Amino acid sequence: MMAGISSTCTNLLPVDLRLPAAALLFPSTTSSGASSTLMSPMRCERRPHQRRRGARLVASAVTSTEPPSSVVGDMERGSLAEKSGRSDGQLAPRWREIHGRGNWEGLLDPIDTVLRGELIRYGEFAQACYDAFDYDRFSRYCGSSRYPPPTFFRDVGLDGVGYEVTRFLYATSNARLPNFVGARRKHRSGDDPDARLWSETASFIGFVAVSTDEETARIGRRDIAVAWRGTVTRLEWVADLTAAPRPAADFGIPCPDHGAKVESGFAELYTGKDPSCRWCRYSAREQVLAEVRKLVDLYHGRGEEVSVTVTGHSLGSALATLSAFDVAETGANVSPDGGRTAPVCVFSFSGPRVGNTRFKTRLERELGVKVLRVVNVHDMVPTVPGVLYVLDERSFPEAVLRLMDNLGMGAVYVHVGVELALDHKVSPYLKAETLDLACFHNLEAHLHLLDGYQGRAREFRLCGRDPALVNKAADFLRDEHMVPPVWRQDANKGMVRAEDGRWVLPPRHREVHDHPEDTDHHLQQLGLAAN
Amino acid sequence: MMAGISSTCTNLLPVDLRLPAAALLFPSTTSSGASSTLMSPMRCERRPHQRRRGARLVASAVTSTEPPSSVVGDMERGSLAEKSGRSDGQLAPRWREIHGRGNWEGLLDPIDTVLRGELIRYGEFAQACYDAFDYDRFSRYCGSSRYPPPTFFRDVGLDGVGYEVTRFLYATSNARLPNFVGARRKHRSGDDPDARLWSETASFIGFVAVSTDEETARIGRRDIAVAWRGTVTRLEWVADLTAAPRPAADFGIPCPDHGAKVESGFAELYTGKDPSCRWCRYSAREQVLAEVRKLVDLYHGRGEEVSVTVTGHSLGSALATLSAFDVAETGANVSPDGGRTAPVCVFSFSGPRVGNTRFKTRLERELGVKVLRVVNVHDMVPTVPGVLYVLDERSFPEAVLRLMDNLGMGAVYVHVGVELALDHKVSPYLKAETLDLACFHNLEAHLHLLDGYQGRAREFRLCGRDPALVNKAADFLRDEHMVPPVWRQDANKGMVRAEDGRWVLPPRHREVHDHPEDTDHHLQQLGLAAN
Repeated sequence: MMAGISSTCTNLLPVDLRLPAAALLFPSTTSSGASSTLMSPMRCERRPHQRRRGARLVASAVTSTEPPSSVVGDMERGSLAEKSGRSDGQLAPRWREIHGRGNWEGLLDPIDTVLRGELIRYGEFAQACYDAFDYDRFSRYCGSSRYPPPTFFRDVGLDGVGYEVTRFLYATSNARLPNFVGARRKHRSGDDPDARLWSETASFIGFVAVSTDEETARIGRRDIAVAWRGTVTRLEWVADLTAAPRPAADFGIPCPDHGAKVESGFAELYTGKDPSCRWCRYSAREQVLAEVRKLVDLYHGRGEEVSVTVTGHSLGSALATLSAFDVAETGANVSPDGGRTAPVCVFSFSGPRVGNTRFKTRLERELGVKVLRVVNVHDMVPTVPGVLYVLDERSFPEAVLRLMDNLGMGAVYVHVGVELALDHKVSPYLKAETLDLACFHNLEAHLHLLDGYQGRAREFRLCGRDPALVNKAADFLRDEHMVPPVWRQDANKGMVRAEDGRWVLPPRHREVHDHPEDTDHHLQQLGLAAN
Repeated sequence: MMAGISSTCTNLLPVDLRLPAAALLFPSTTSSGASSTLMSPMRCERRPHQRRRGARLVASAVTSTEPPSSVVGDMERGSLAEKSGRSDGQLAPRWREIHGRGNWEGLLDPIDTVLRGELIRYGEFAQACYDAFDYDRFSRYCGSSRYPPPTFFRDVGLDGVGYEVTRFLYATSNARLPNFVGARRKHRSGDDPDARLWSETASFIGFVAVSTDEETARIGRRDIAVAWRGTVTRLEWVADLTAAPRPAADFGIPCPDHGAKVESGFAELYTGKDPSCRWCRYSAREQVLAEVRKLVDLYHGRGEEVSVTVTGHSLGSALATLSAFDVAETGANVSPDGGRTAPVCVFSFSGPRVGNTRFKTRLERELGVKVLRVVNVHDMVPTVPGVLYVLDERSFPEAVLRLMDNLGMGAVYVHVGVELALDHKVSPYLKAETLDLACFHNLEAHLHLLDGYQGRAREFRLCGRDPALVNKAADFLRDEHMVPPVWRQDANKGMVRAEDGRWVLPPRHREVHDHPEDTDHHLQQLGLAAN
């Protein structure tokens, strides 16, 4: 039975129901792993002096002239060699533990250096989905990935990461989550020869990647990484989470407990498809299951140990949790002869809740899927949806929640897995006060906070990740660091001067990749219907 | 006596006081040049069918594969040779006429091709002030020109224009027009070694340039071009035009008529200085007068014919008008022995009114300064300030305005010179309906409209200027042309990756140019006090 460390501060609740941020620094966990009663407000103590200690920063880190030492993910750095738990060999003998076998007990406070590096790595994979996403209304390929699979990691600045993309994932426009897909292309003339090269309704939603042979040797197993994209609109999609939870089984996930329910919007996005669309004639679900099954089969067949690591930020976190549940439920991580099982782990960022107590039980206890949720205590997204949509689960004893669930009371959403709570206010790089709530939710900011996180009540001390990355798509760094807000942009929005002197948007060379022909085969192997 | 074609449509007035746009296409001018009574509303006729003819566009211009033929200013175009009135020799024999000696009679409808080319050229000079202006809050040199004088024209894309910048013009922050100077630098650390390289209060406000020997031969005279920058904020500065008009003489301009008044904000910006600032210890006025005097003296001394051509957009138009008045009033355009006088002409864009009726009389009749004002009939800036600030001058017979002025009634602003009225609705490239009023005011849009302008009620037909330029800093092109709005921008806002992999704003090499040592000398020659 896994102890759930699932306390979060919610700024949306009346004061008496909120937990002081300090409580997050001292979650009540038992080392024996026995289930703990959810914390009640009365048991929280505010220990401001200890929070302040965490806030006292090492100014030297700001002015250090040393090059970044362990900058996982910031790998395209010329002659500097990457140092991390991967390259110095620490990960390989401990990968299962880092992958959550022991629910990360003893690894969070103080934080295990190798674990921190892995969290940042998978966070970079989630960030890559954003960096690659073309959401320019004037682009002919609005909604697609700007970079093709073969050069994907190099193009997003993760050259040398040691993975190769094997498949992109696509979802179709989802009526229930209209803000997720993003803007559609402004205008397409009827005779546009490019019309066949992209779709009006498909959206690049993530990728599946595999560790190279060299990386596999370094990390002790073949890792299949699945990364899901979050939203590029600010936070409007949160308002779309109004549907009642529905049984996972209703969406085709072979969960035997029809009381295990999930938020419908996520599930519809995950399982929706458009038979008329070349990219979405398979649902995202079918794409990821077929790909995971294929890869697990392939590498288990070679006698390798295999892991499945799923990641995502925000809405992508919900998709990560849902798809990890699905992979385990469907058995895509199990070799066909049943002999070997690849462990499934989720490293999520800024994630909302996904399902009810029965879903949590099924995921954690019966399927054995491990989930580590990185959150910022000031971010509101991890607080939704709640119990009866708006109430925090920790306002209710677990027994009550289960009863409400069993009685079919409706929306009783609870978090899964283990939480690693960060606080942006402890970083001297970030604005202490800003009205821009989206900053609290920003993924690069979370990676920055991870880089400086040493443990509860320990000093924030950067380990080398470039703080300037925080402002790629946010206005979160303090002005004195002289980094422009939202700085990541193309010169002249991609306009170039043609030979005749006119400014034009050049056509982007685009290779069209069809779904692999063996997709149906693998789906059938999993007991799913072919398209 | 010059006929003033000064009708403008004002959308701010009650319907009965507004002139139909069509009236602008048929201004009532007399060929004899006798002064015309200001148009009363009853005399306007709407001729919609003729307007619509102008609106019917040549679709072929959109899809033409021909290279731009006569694209004055779009000169950095590789192997294509520039064709214009300058290079084909048409301008040289006619330069005085083009320079406004005859008040452009007979040159506006149909528009004289050589004149159109000149208007676009000087418009490009005004545009260059914007393109060069560094208004990035995070730049150490916020407020300065991004490009140094020696490479200025090349850097703004006007390589081959045939002029050389001889001096930059600077103004100090002006309390009365706070929106003009633009944002100040966000933060400067106390020990910033760059602090000496720029100023907290100075602002790049324009330049003085001279035609090269080669260009001089082409255009028939040595041309001294003065360009003034407009505002980079949208239109907030218009609200700052609330000061009462004051005699030009109050600002040191040696105008004998103390009833000739100008808008105070413009004049204070023009004459303000900060003795403690290296760049603003001379006022903009002193800088431009000293420079014009020096250059006129130099080239008259060589026996050359010399012209002074002043240009500016928006607030820059007001500075252009005021400085041209000043140059003539002070005699900076006259060789010291009084032998030769360089004619002074203003080509202005989207300009507000500058002074009262006595100012107009002094400028036009007594000083002989020629002004051609290019406006968009839908732009509100040329409608301010008005009579008693908000009323249109054309609501009043001229005699009434003069009487009001002579009686010292206060704000009686009138336009000067000759107007060339354009209408953005006749271009098929531009959005017919947009809530973004700043579009109507946009300079690149005016240059586009000039490029297509053939004459009143004549078809809009582009002569080769790239329509994509319209959207450099505006969202004005129709979507179907697939040009992103506001596309001119630096890659990653100037951030670059250093050797160690960190993203940084690189220090910009900056040469500091002091004011020429002979500045005081020339000011004294003009009868102005030395600094």
